[in-house]
Amino acid sequence: MSKVLVTGHKNPDTDSISSAIVYAYLKNQLGVDAQPVRLGEVNKETAYALDYFQVESPVFADENVQQSVEEIILVDHNEEQQSIDDRENFKVIEVIDHHRIANFETMDPLYYRAEPVGCTATILLKLFKEKNVDIPKDLAGLMMSAIISDSLLFKSPTCTDEDIQAARELASIADVDVESYGLEMLKAGADMSGKTPDDLLTMDAKLFEVENYQLEIAQVNTVDVADVLENKDDITKKMDEIIQEKQLSVSLFVITDILNNDSTVVARGEDSGKVECAFDVDLDDDTAVLKGVVSRKKQIAPVLMKEFSTKTKV
Amino acid sequence: MSKVLVTGHKNPDTDSISSAIVYAYLKNQLGVDAQPVRLGEVNKETAYALDYFQVESPVFADENVQQSVEEIILVDHNEEQQSIDDRENFKVIEVIDHHRIANFETMDPLYYRAEPVGCTATILLKLFKEKNVDIPKDLAGLMMSAIISDSLLFKSPTCTDEDIQAARELASIADVDVESYGLEMLKAGADMSGKTPDDLLTMDAKLFEVENYQLEIAQVNTVDVADVLENKDDITKKMDEIIQEKQLSVSLFVITDILNNDSTVVARGEDSGKVECAFDVDLDDDTAVLKGVVSRKKQIAPVLMKEFSTKTKV
Repeated sequence: MSKVLVTGHKNPDTDSISSAIVYAYLKNQLGVDAQPVRLGEVNKETAYALDYFQVESPVFADENVQQSVEEIILVDHNEEQQSIDDRENFKVIEVIDHHRIANFETMDPLYYRAEPVGCTATILLKLFKEKNVDIPKDLAGLMMSAIISDSLLFKSPTCTDEDIQAARELASIADVDVESYGLEMLKAGADMSGKTPDDLLTMDAKLFEVENYQLEIAQVNTVDVADVLENKDDITKKMDEIIQEKQLSVSLFVITDILNNDSTVVARGEDSGKVECAFDVDLDDDTAVLKGVVSRKKQIAPVLMKEFSTKTKV
Repeated sequence: MSKVLVTGHKNPDTDSISSAIVYAYLKNQLGVDAQPVRLGEVNKETAYALDYFQVESPVFADENVQQSVEEIILVDHNEEQQSIDDRENFKVIEVIDHHRIANFETMDPLYYRAEPVGCTATILLKLFKEKNVDIPKDLAGLMMSAIISDSLLFKSPTCTDEDIQAARELASIADVDVESYGLEMLKAGADMSGKTPDDLLTMDAKLFEVENYQLEIAQVNTVDVADVLENKDDITKKMDEIIQEKQLSVSLFVITDILNNDSTVVARGEDSGKVECAFDVDLDDDTAVLKGVVSRKKQIAPVLMKEFSTKTKV
């Protein structure tokens, strides 16, 4: 049987890395030759989790790794623009995800498991149970880390009761205190020292397509918003370069305060006025504060996309 | 809580009708106000099953039924052109399906459960178990009927071991002999007496889109192919009308012999030459026999779509 790659999205976060590792492990236990890969650098938060639980990072999906592989499994994403380059060269045989479905098409039936929960790891926990496979302590720790990351320690509106239950169950397997570990992990991820504008705008950026519009939303977590925006002029200059390069209608930079659970956004692009309409705010020097907004997936992307869409979508 | 409609595809078959009824029942047991609906007439095969197990047909999803409904659940399909008209007026909150994914997009995360098995009912059986809900005898009979229908009594290449296991388990709940019941049900569905060319070409027709091409594949099951093609000139005339009306590249009429498990196809349309390439056959008077081919989903649609596609798809 030939090898199957398990991959999360570009600009990988803790869920994308952890879920690739964990789902590849589950497939291995079920007799499939699955290898986890990553589509970008491991961020500081994920590095903290991998180091804490002593799990190796997946390898980068370079040409060598992709060689002679025909089938891939997607975790934590489905949209083509967030996925492995030249995806049409592979056959997607499974998807495990918790996002909206878009820009995804197959020729053949496949296994697709999406649930409207806060984290892919929450769905993976169910799959382990359905398949009667035990979760090793270190992988339980990674899955718990993914839930903490996606839910900002249960404070995001994307977080469901199922996610909280799953995190607590996994914490007990991993033998870790979820609250204290979680805060340390988030702080490690929120450390923006030494980050260039380019780093800040690419470390967790996602591209969304609505009809003919391209929107990019970059997000960072921090405990000090002013610190991140210290070199704001350099940041907006970089945003304009990215807009030019990718032909974006809007580039949105979201700085989420993980202590206060608000977000400051910087908006650039010729359609940045739509950001004002979408969130009912006034941009002052390209900047506005979105009170109580922490989730790109639930509170930012759909709101902005609806503003750009000419029709109601399912 | 407002009502949710559960709907299968247009030109409903036994799986689309049964799965709508059965999944609405499961949702009801879980506290959701779900109502099964249908998007077309109940065919003879499905009518046999509904009558045998004394289950009422779902109501037709007319304007009255749709009124004040905001959310829908799709079973046995996902592609927009096979779905309820003006789907953008609804929010799709769940999909349970066993087909390829295409022409499907949402703004928000949802529950999407697809598996590469032969029948939606096979997946529903798992969901009942996962939710710890007992399946009533009559609904087990319908689910078994759906599997028999989609798998042509386990002879289709779409049929998996899971489907066979599920059908046997459901037969035991329904207290029915799967082989003898199955043959009678298939024969009831294969009765083409009194069918006009229009009936034959619309009773189970599915539209497929590949890039800018529109392909329609209509399929009927029979025990006597010659009988179905008795008025072949009228049938090809009707096919040409449909091609004109829907601007099709190809209209394919598939007559599947459920006793011999071969299919005779009639192809019309300016790109009907691609049918010859796709299946490596010569059309003689628009007609060819495809040996061992019984499954539109697995043996016809993907083969033909790959012929029309200019690129490899996932």
